Amino acid sequence: MRKERLLLAVTLIAIFSADLYFILLPKLRNVEGLGQFCSCRRGNFSFPAQFSNWTSVPLQDVYASGLPNEGSKLDSLFAHPLYNIQNPTLEAEEKLLQVDLLMNYYRKKISRWERHMKLYNEAASTSNITMTQHRVDFDVGANWLKFHTGISRHALYSRHDPAITRLLADMRDMMVVNADYTQDEKALKGACDCSQVVKPSGHHLKLALKMQNFGKAMFKPMRQERDEETPDDVFFFVDVQRHNAEIAAFHLDRILDFRRVPPVVGRYLNLTGEVLQVTQNDDLRAVFFTSPANNTCFFSKCLYTCKTEYAVCGHPDLLEGSLSAYLPSLSIAPRISIPNPWIRSYTFTGQEEWQVNPSYCDNIKKLYPYNSGNRLLNIIDMAVFDFLIGNMDRHHYEIFTKFGDEGFPLHLDNARGFGKHSQDEMSILAPLSQCCIIKRSTLLRLQLLAQPQFRLSDMMRESLQKDPLRPILTETHLSALDRRLVKILRAVQRCTRKLGSEQVIANDFIGATVNPRANAESKKAR
Amino acid sequence: MRKERLLLAVTLIAIFSADLYFILLPKLRNVEGLGQFCSCRRGNFSFPAQFSNWTSVPLQDVYASGLPNEGSKLDSLFAHPLYNIQNPTLEAEEKLLQVDLLMNYYRKKISRWERHMKLYNEAASTSNITMTQHRVDFDVGANWLKFHTGISRHALYSRHDPAITRLLADMRDMMVVNADYTQDEKALKGACDCSQVVKPSGHHLKLALKMQNFGKAMFKPMRQERDEETPDDVFFFVDVQRHNAEIAAFHLDRILDFRRVPPVVGRYLNLTGEVLQVTQNDDLRAVFFTSPANNTCFFSKCLYTCKTEYAVCGHPDLLEGSLSAYLPSLSIAPRISIPNPWIRSYTFTGQEEWQVNPSYCDNIKKLYPYNSGNRLLNIIDMAVFDFLIGNMDRHHYEIFTKFGDEGFPLHLDNARGFGKHSQDEMSILAPLSQCCIIKRSTLLRLQLLAQPQFRLSDMMRESLQKDPLRPILTETHLSALDRRLVKILRAVQRCTRKLGSEQVIANDFIGATVNPRANAESKKAR
Repeated sequence: MRKERLLLAVTLIAIFSADLYFILLPKLRNVEGLGQFCSCRRGNFSFPAQFSNWTSVPLQDVYASGLPNEGSKLDSLFAHPLYNIQNPTLEAEEKLLQVDLLMNYYRKKISRWERHMKLYNEAASTSNITMTQHRVDFDVGANWLKFHTGISRHALYSRHDPAITRLLADMRDMMVVNADYTQDEKALKGACDCSQVVKPSGHHLKLALKMQNFGKAMFKPMRQERDEETPDDVFFFVDVQRHNAEIAAFHLDRILDFRRVPPVVGRYLNLTGEVLQVTQNDDLRAVFFTSPANNTCFFSKCLYTCKTEYAVCGHPDLLEGSLSAYLPSLSIAPRISIPNPWIRSYTFTGQEEWQVNPSYCDNIKKLYPYNSGNRLLNIIDMAVFDFLIGNMDRHHYEIFTKFGDEGFPLHLDNARGFGKHSQDEMSILAPLSQCCIIKRSTLLRLQLLAQPQFRLSDMMRESLQKDPLRPILTETHLSALDRRLVKILRAVQRCTRKLGSEQVIANDFIGATVNPRANAESKKAR
Repeated sequence: MRKERLLLAVTLIAIFSADLYFILLPKLRNVEGLGQFCSCRRGNFSFPAQFSNWTSVPLQDVYASGLPNEGSKLDSLFAHPLYNIQNPTLEAEEKLLQVDLLMNYYRKKISRWERHMKLYNEAASTSNITMTQHRVDFDVGANWLKFHTGISRHALYSRHDPAITRLLADMRDMMVVNADYTQDEKALKGACDCSQVVKPSGHHLKLALKMQNFGKAMFKPMRQERDEETPDDVFFFVDVQRHNAEIAAFHLDRILDFRRVPPVVGRYLNLTGEVLQVTQNDDLRAVFFTSPANNTCFFSKCLYTCKTEYAVCGHPDLLEGSLSAYLPSLSIAPRISIPNPWIRSYTFTGQEEWQVNPSYCDNIKKLYPYNSGNRLLNIIDMAVFDFLIGNMDRHHYEIFTKFGDEGFPLHLDNARGFGKHSQDEMSILAPLSQCCIIKRSTLLRLQLLAQPQFRLSDMMRESLQKDPLRPILTETHLSALDRRLVKILRAVQRCTRKLGSEQVIANDFIGATVNPRANAESKKAR
């Protein structure tokens, strides 16, 4: 451990010592950088020429601004020009949802819910089920609605959207009016489907919660202590899901400026008051029990018969977990699920082609949809993200159908991240190391986060400090992020040495500002 | 913890301070006690008169002998008169097995095995299965055979039988020539029987091993670290099985002089050389795999499909576990399984009559087979044993059919003991506290083991030190034994205060020396 830390420190100092000279001095002068970056407003800006041979030359002006102020380093990061590249004004078709259609959809849903509640309560009172009844207040200005209407072709939310912070607060504080199994769980219908790919039992303990303002969130209970490391003998696909990994992944995704993880916040849920007494699902009510230590516990239906040791328990009622905001319903914003080309074998012995064929990416590059547009670059962004969190379980990714080939992959379901802090699973980086291509914007941000004043671990520590369940990550996991970041940069460096930076670093800014319709038309023309 | 320890120390000092005076002084004189105890040879000895009001009067001569010598305290214990009460010479029908019949049975089994091996090896070589072939040497003087032929109506083995120590050494060192699922496991046939009483998955990881001299042992793999305590929320019947509990239970049972646990020893098993390469069971071979950390692992068939996270792994091949000697096959020494009258509910909410009705024992005392003979006293012995190890999972007990109502209950399957050192589950003592009856011999030994020079934890520590997997129990578990012993003695004290010692303390020595046939005849006469 100590050796590794020393190595990390030495590497960081070696790579960026030159930068420090150039940054620390102009620090006290003016903030010219921001002005430069404003050129991106014109939709076609370019980075300083020094960038192309970034591996040896200091990044100078690129990092000259966004100085850490006395207060928040994270605020300084988000004030940095790299986090203020402005997208052109969104056209209607670049938004996921049409506001008026969405409002109609939810108004209908709410009246259906109210009718259903009335009937259910009448039925419940005759069958002696005691239920807590909460009023639901639908508000057209609710933060979860603002989150849904804010989803665009570029990201799940815009950088400085105050609705996201407020949505986190809502999920943390708002009264839960209904709890149920999630759709996945309902699809199981309580059966132990042993023929299916083996999944750890913790998988089935998540709950769908409805808030007082009709917002929905998915609850994943705490299954493991913060400092427990996944044992070496555990296969990635049978690892438990960690609520703190869900929370940390949201913060990391935002710090990397991908904004492809729906908002997640930690919360203590009262299993009695906020689940048992508000659920209308008799099956869910049936799996509640009191443990020998007099705690309220529950397991999913499948667990009830097969795997009772997998219950989760409150203390005595309060259970720690993560709450992830729901995306708009599939009926109004359909998504497609696409197998990850770098999928892993979900058997105990299997190997996939990418694991044995070093020129695998050459084939992928020729295949639709990876042969044009940003898809492959987005997959590499996802690999960078997954490598940082140590997630080997990205078998599929989802894309909003509406945006077609120009859509971004959602970074959903990150609960298998942050399992081992002491190990860096290099194979997760295979898309980057095999394809030798990365977005310029991603690379610049990674380089920025490798610098002492914006050190990734510091940014994460500060960001996670805002979560009610803090600390979310142990210091060992935070320092693993810094170590892995250096490894990503080294992987890029190996590529640029081999192929030259022109080949490796893709100028994604131009692509990102093109009108999707124009893009589609240009494709047709080809 | 500290408070409890202090309380324990004070209690021990208070109860036995008087004894100390009377014991320490005569210590240096002569060993008259032994002479007194020899009276039992005459088949009808009685204890010193002081005994009947033991709670206030020092035990004097009873404990005056068996002084701890400079070397082994355990040897001193076993040299104590209480451990040298001689049974009358065993009559033929008091032995479980007839030696000549047994030898014939095993000779036939061995020739069948040799024929089978020959055929299997031919078949294996044609289907490309690499198997290690070991010669089996059947020896009529083998220690496992001596153990089997030594089983009597009184106990599984006699007190100073050297074959038992040698059997432990055999199980520890001898080459394994075959491995297979146990019969329980085979009965499952790989199906996940979810309708059955919920059992933790660890249950299905045990293996039947055949040794080079045709002896058999059951292997239970390590599932939990020594210092891991069972979480408070876990129900007793879903607790994992602990290999060290199996080992410790054998030693404790011997120290309590019950001798109803078959010999158990710890061993590192080579999963590749001693299981995978010697098994003839294709199903077992199929559940072996190599973990991401390159360790050899396996799970049972049922687990393979449902509960993969429940594999056990060697490091890289060696896996720690307990080996319990097999009892003679059910075909030559049938046993019956009888529900424990103090059975617990194996549901999450259920309660049994004994848990709500304080006069439950009055009913039991009237019921066959608890209305005569030693059965109820033996059940109370078992409760004392289970309370000391903290085992709540004694739903059934087994008795050799041959000995009928005069048989002793076997203390099999103790792997759910030693789960919590910090808690004393008083309900396990219900048979004692509700029936207010205990064997004189059991009580005397418990009192002896509560004394400083024969302190139970010291005896156990010394005894367990002989096991190759030492330390078997943590110090916290050892001191829990002392604390629980005091609680048992207090429970007896409450009974004698209420009912008088004549009522509570059963003079079992007379019963134990009666010819079983005579006993049966006297029953008929009634």
